Amino acid sequence: MKRLRVRQALGSETPVESIVVKGWVRTKRENKGFAFIELNDGSCLSNLQVIVDEGIAGWEDIARVTTGASISVEGNLVESPGAGQKWEVHGTSLTLLGDADPETFPLQKKRHSDEFLRSIAHLRPRTNKFGAIFRIRSEAAYAVHKFFRDNGFAYVHSPIITGSDCEGAGEMFRVTTLDPASPEACNPENDFFGKSAALTVSGQLAAEIFATSLGDVYTFGPTFRAENSNTPRHAAEFWMIEPEMAFADLTDDMNLGEAFLKSVVGHLRTHCAEDLALFAQWVDKELDATLDTILNEDFARVSYTEAVDILLANSKTKKGKDRFEYPVSWGIDLQTEHERFLTEEHFKRPVIVYDYPKDIKAFYMRLNEDGKTVAAMDILVPRVGEIIGGSQREERIDVLNSRIAELGLNPDDYWWYMDLRRFGSVPHAGFGMGFERLLMMVTGVTNIRDVIPCPRTPKHLEF
Amino acid sequence: MKRLRVRQALGSETPVESIVVKGWVRTKRENKGFAFIELNDGSCLSNLQVIVDEGIAGWEDIARVTTGASISVEGNLVESPGAGQKWEVHGTSLTLLGDADPETFPLQKKRHSDEFLRSIAHLRPRTNKFGAIFRIRSEAAYAVHKFFRDNGFAYVHSPIITGSDCEGAGEMFRVTTLDPASPEACNPENDFFGKSAALTVSGQLAAEIFATSLGDVYTFGPTFRAENSNTPRHAAEFWMIEPEMAFADLTDDMNLGEAFLKSVVGHLRTHCAEDLALFAQWVDKELDATLDTILNEDFARVSYTEAVDILLANSKTKKGKDRFEYPVSWGIDLQTEHERFLTEEHFKRPVIVYDYPKDIKAFYMRLNEDGKTVAAMDILVPRVGEIIGGSQREERIDVLNSRIAELGLNPDDYWWYMDLRRFGSVPHAGFGMGFERLLMMVTGVTNIRDVIPCPRTPKHLEF
Repeated sequence: MKRLRVRQALGSETPVESIVVKGWVRTKRENKGFAFIELNDGSCLSNLQVIVDEGIAGWEDIARVTTGASISVEGNLVESPGAGQKWEVHGTSLTLLGDADPETFPLQKKRHSDEFLRSIAHLRPRTNKFGAIFRIRSEAAYAVHKFFRDNGFAYVHSPIITGSDCEGAGEMFRVTTLDPASPEACNPENDFFGKSAALTVSGQLAAEIFATSLGDVYTFGPTFRAENSNTPRHAAEFWMIEPEMAFADLTDDMNLGEAFLKSVVGHLRTHCAEDLALFAQWVDKELDATLDTILNEDFARVSYTEAVDILLANSKTKKGKDRFEYPVSWGIDLQTEHERFLTEEHFKRPVIVYDYPKDIKAFYMRLNEDGKTVAAMDILVPRVGEIIGGSQREERIDVLNSRIAELGLNPDDYWWYMDLRRFGSVPHAGFGMGFERLLMMVTGVTNIRDVIPCPRTPKHLEF
Repeated sequence: MKRLRVRQALGSETPVESIVVKGWVRTKRENKGFAFIELNDGSCLSNLQVIVDEGIAGWEDIARVTTGASISVEGNLVESPGAGQKWEVHGTSLTLLGDADPETFPLQKKRHSDEFLRSIAHLRPRTNKFGAIFRIRSEAAYAVHKFFRDNGFAYVHSPIITGSDCEGAGEMFRVTTLDPASPEACNPENDFFGKSAALTVSGQLAAEIFATSLGDVYTFGPTFRAENSNTPRHAAEFWMIEPEMAFADLTDDMNLGEAFLKSVVGHLRTHCAEDLALFAQWVDKELDATLDTILNEDFARVSYTEAVDILLANSKTKKGKDRFEYPVSWGIDLQTEHERFLTEEHFKRPVIVYDYPKDIKAFYMRLNEDGKTVAAMDILVPRVGEIIGGSQREERIDVLNSRIAELGLNPDDYWWYMDLRRFGSVPHAGFGMGFERLLMMVTGVTNIRDVIPCPRTPKHLEF
């Protein structure tokens, strides 16, 4: 007897006799002589309605068919006379697979807070919202891989354990096999790798190895920040996507970022319509409008200098009050309030800001002719702010050496990175995007903990 | 002017005027009045032949167009009169992008040992062999994602940092933000997560969360072993694929493993033919035969007990000598020599061995009726040995509790794992496959360090 997933059953073109459906009970309504069961198996948001009549095999267990219980039902898929669904299953036999004691099963049919659900992260994907989130997460990951492969990029697994802190972004977790109680623990030479080891904060430097050999490449893997900050936008462990293109400049980079975002949003609109609708209805009423803008509008492009001028010209509201908490002047790092003003108020669409002051950007970004800005770019989207940050990389070995010296970095840490410029150096460019930021953008979910299967934050390491 | 990747140029259907090609010089032969350049840009194994005549723009740099240098050439794609290639480029102008000093560039045109190339892992993808390996790695990752998505599996990012060592496999790396020199370092309560943290050795337990909510799922991410063993088959960091199916038993699991391997091998045969041919020619003469067997033969299936009987019946060679170094008896863990005998000598095709003694398998594997074996299975392939290990999981909470007690594990560590059995428990099954094992299988490469972009092994943490 053929098992149909709920998604297959609901998408059927014809009635089907003699099928099996399996899943978890969302609700059951018992009437005299029969019962309605709403069955979900995680294959889609919708439940499948199952009707079982008193007296069929397994009916004796009907009292135990409660919310959260797992069952298997044999029967026929028939047109549903009721409103709201095209198909339903008429059961010919019912098997209870696993109970869910109504006294202790935490997911009774009522609305639970996101915070409560985080405390039962092992059960929350059984809810509509989190089931939808993690189906979207899966499909978004596929959309990322498909976009890059279709465009000729090779996927590179950049290393997770790294030997230096020269990646230049944030605090790092240390990785060790030494017993902290032992005196050897203080000497990294005794450690597994014979030197200090840490979890990566970015795969970019390794991606440059492969861009300068395979051509266009991307990484998509976990990255880590040991920042002790408990905000809705920070997690200690998250996934990053970092494309890197050889023979490419900053314009190529901006074009790639724009095409990439449009492609992923378009893919999800096509393949996750039902799940996305849940968020547009319950989580963020402006979600559809935001996604429309990303999909349909050309992204505005302004230099950092122009962006600062726009912000200065708008530093007062119409009523003469200060618009921004953080004052604006050339040279500052743009704050979220500035970024959101640009994309939401001024341009009302995604904006790419490029050519940032070198002093607020990383050493590897390509110095512009003016000597004071670098070929960096950030993509800002409404309601999210910065979603992508990238740059053309400094490919001139002498300029890169000067920058390393200027910033007081240790050139020895970069011997192999310099070799990429020493031998057959090429212009190249890339960007980084936090995968969870993308998921927050497409769902309207505002807490990063709610788009990660098992989130890791300060003092939280369960599941 | 349109840039063509080398792969696009070589696959062209027609001549194309006014194109640009960019890449790295593999070789140059200078003749009187012109030069042949073999150009590679990493998009494929083959080089593109470029002919430049004396006197074109940029000719003055021809002496610097040496092996490893990067160049850009404008010109026309025309039919090649020479043997060995259909197309070549007649350059109209040449731009040297980056030198590669012949005195110092390590990749001169000659054969280098794998060991030497590991010491320059940042340059080795510029060689034919490693370029091919990492293109195959990329395409194999895509084949994995495509197989699972086409079969309705959702992709889950299981956590990398884990709070317990209850995953049950091997030694773990500790993750910490404490200064080892500080007295607090000895108390995990002071640490970032408020408890001991480690790098995951398996995503399975988390995958079970999602199998018992979304249905069929898989993980594909990095995993870690802190084993101080310097063998060609072990790395401290490698990528694992772990599917997990709800409402599935051991037969479903074996079927999935067999279908999965055939699918990935078939995909690579189609999409990486040129790169695979390099390995069949230079690395492993029997590669094609091995892959044929995986693709075309039904995998043999024998119980562990049958396998032991076969081994016992063959414990002597025809000449009466001991065939195996490790003696065989019911209850032993099969050694590589036993596995290879079964798949290479006895069955001459892939073999699935199932129903192993419970004492040599993990606590979460489902106890069989006989009370002494568990519903585990390993897939063995010729020349590689074990490539997949999986099991049906124990879904009966009382049996699982007994197993945990029997093995002296701490039940508190498993509270959420038990909840998956407490509420709507379902039969489920899955397996794990080391991605690098798969790559070694399809390329014939015998050292795991050579299929990982930046390999991590004891005392080795460069790049």
